[in-house]
Amino acid sequence: MRIVELRELTVPLEGRVANAVVNFSAHTVSLVAAISDQYRNGRPVVGLAFNSIGRFGQSGILRERLFPRVLSADPEALLNPETGCFDPARVAEVAMRNEKPGGHGDRAIALGALELATWDLLAKLADEPAWRTIARAFGHPVTSDRTPVYAAGGYYYPNDSTARLVDELQRYRDLGYTAFKMKIGGATLREDMLRIEAALTVAGTGANLCVDANGRFDLETALAYAKAFSALELRWYEEAGDPLDYALNQSLIQQYAGPVATGENLFSRQDVANLVRYGGMRQAQDVFQMDAGLCYGLTEYAAMVELLEGNGFNRRQCHPHGGHLLNLHIAIGLGLGGCEAYPGVFQPFGGYPAECGVGDGFVRPTDAPGFGLEQKAELATCIERLVG
Amino acid sequence: MRIVELRELTVPLEGRVANAVVNFSAHTVSLVAAISDQYRNGRPVVGLAFNSIGRFGQSGILRERLFPRVLSADPEALLNPETGCFDPARVAEVAMRNEKPGGHGDRAIALGALELATWDLLAKLADEPAWRTIARAFGHPVTSDRTPVYAAGGYYYPNDSTARLVDELQRYRDLGYTAFKMKIGGATLREDMLRIEAALTVAGTGANLCVDANGRFDLETALAYAKAFSALELRWYEEAGDPLDYALNQSLIQQYAGPVATGENLFSRQDVANLVRYGGMRQAQDVFQMDAGLCYGLTEYAAMVELLEGNGFNRRQCHPHGGHLLNLHIAIGLGLGGCEAYPGVFQPFGGYPAECGVGDGFVRPTDAPGFGLEQKAELATCIERLVG
Repeated sequence: MRIVELRELTVPLEGRVANAVVNFSAHTVSLVAAISDQYRNGRPVVGLAFNSIGRFGQSGILRERLFPRVLSADPEALLNPETGCFDPARVAEVAMRNEKPGGHGDRAIALGALELATWDLLAKLADEPAWRTIARAFGHPVTSDRTPVYAAGGYYYPNDSTARLVDELQRYRDLGYTAFKMKIGGATLREDMLRIEAALTVAGTGANLCVDANGRFDLETALAYAKAFSALELRWYEEAGDPLDYALNQSLIQQYAGPVATGENLFSRQDVANLVRYGGMRQAQDVFQMDAGLCYGLTEYAAMVELLEGNGFNRRQCHPHGGHLLNLHIAIGLGLGGCEAYPGVFQPFGGYPAECGVGDGFVRPTDAPGFGLEQKAELATCIERLVG
Repeated sequence: MRIVELRELTVPLEGRVANAVVNFSAHTVSLVAAISDQYRNGRPVVGLAFNSIGRFGQSGILRERLFPRVLSADPEALLNPETGCFDPARVAEVAMRNEKPGGHGDRAIALGALELATWDLLAKLADEPAWRTIARAFGHPVTSDRTPVYAAGGYYYPNDSTARLVDELQRYRDLGYTAFKMKIGGATLREDMLRIEAALTVAGTGANLCVDANGRFDLETALAYAKAFSALELRWYEEAGDPLDYALNQSLIQQYAGPVATGENLFSRQDVANLVRYGGMRQAQDVFQMDAGLCYGLTEYAAMVELLEGNGFNRRQCHPHGGHLLNLHIAIGLGLGGCEAYPGVFQPFGGYPAECGVGDGFVRPTDAPGFGLEQKAELATCIERLVG
């Protein structure tokens, strides 16, 4: 059993949204295909995945470093000797040969797509949804075939208004979402508080509304926002400061009673270990948002979850960044706290196909084999271009 | 004044050496050219630099993200309004637009090459060696036109022996080097101690010999090595553990009296701030090895030096990773503790042209404008291929 070809397609993200730091209009994502020598129904079994959202396509690193290492390796080196089938951890290890330690940036994102494509391949070979393959591989008993989901949106738009924000969240509510996340930090504190109050007219209570500063604030600003909305008892306050500024996170937590969330820009186990050591994160309260597609794939992500549990945290405190099918299957397969969705933005990758049945604040994957990316109409055309 | 074209050439590193973690035989480096609309002697002035050594060429990120942002920007946005000349900090800022915080990996390396090419361009426009331009820009009085240098080598080779290692270091001594660095961690502790003792027959005393584990050790192994060579009073003990494992570094320092060195795999100010906060580094003793060509360029590197001084460290504790002309000029221009050289390896980028006159443990740049890369014969052919 071997991988005969690896392909990559750089796909532009649709939409012209912005958070407090980043305008996404020129962003891209790498869609990766791992073509195997195995056949089902007369066609080769192909593993598909992408590198989540927000850190650009990685065609250079994939084509120049990771793909050649995997394709030139002894095919046996990519297999689990017990099962005789592909082993995503070994694929990742081979792909990372002769890379130096540290510097967990773009290469972590490139490998995320490749490693997850191997999971899709594994699940398709077993003819089952990826969450079943993932649960079995990590020995986690699955207690539910659905997971809590919230609708992430509330970006800043040209000619924005609180009325536009309310319309947007109402649209999400009509789709079956009961919890929401919106951006802060792209306007003044006063304007952002008006936006939050407007959003609460849809969310109902603070328990249904998260706010996300995308790492923009210094400590003083982070605390000013915290003070302004502390009485609203928001669901969580996300990425107030620089993702690597653990001291800021700790200081914020010392002065803010509500849950904080961070981690979407931590791409290695060692970074998460530092957050745990120095960041002040509270057991059974704060939220970890690492994203397998940005952090070398599911092998490294599962090791992060294990590290958290070893430090007294509960895996339900994990809500991966990136609202898409990959993290839906991972959230169910590993029994995490939930996942997000971008129903209106980040097409063709964001959100879930209609068959997934969002409702009552939950989302449920279909029975399609693998991550079921082929069921998402917007993605299907890209997949067709990549693997024909 | 504007940059009319940006070019990149991915150049393979010569040599088949390995440290404890990495075999360099498939490594590459990006050589970048920033072609201006300014002319000298009938030819356009071209800024040249590369992304140091050890983290691969970055053609994908340069061509897909950084170059298009710089070339599509308003040319005024790249200039210092006071001088009317290119401003490397502004070039870097434009190149990083719409990038998320955190994830300081490959993009930091890509920008390193581009930002340093802007410094080469600036120095050539002023018709002076880059160290003069750098010293003036950062307001640092230059006290010497030469800087201490040590020869870095002592890698592991196929069919290695202590005799080969001794030969290698003797060759460096014959070239004028008086201090040396060798790798550890790629053999057993017992074998490595034999290698260290052999190296000391050339180095004379421990004060002339550094050892480098390239981040390989866990704490237990790091301490076992420390204990084994503590009586030798080595010049420094480099990158014992994972570069982001600040707790390991702190524990090692608590139990090892000699100087430790780290930082070559920290690519942002925030990572250096964390090393200072949590790593236990000692004022006037330990060594910081961040490398401008790996950390978004000289603008970010100089900010790191400022951060260190703000925390009571001396800039002479900085010895940048990467033994090449870029860091030679930076070490003199910023008044750092010294730089390294790879006289035998990492061609065409490592080491210095013969005109630089290594002797008595110092190296002195020539009067060539910019970083003087054109004077390095091995590089000149690559430059010719890139800019014709």
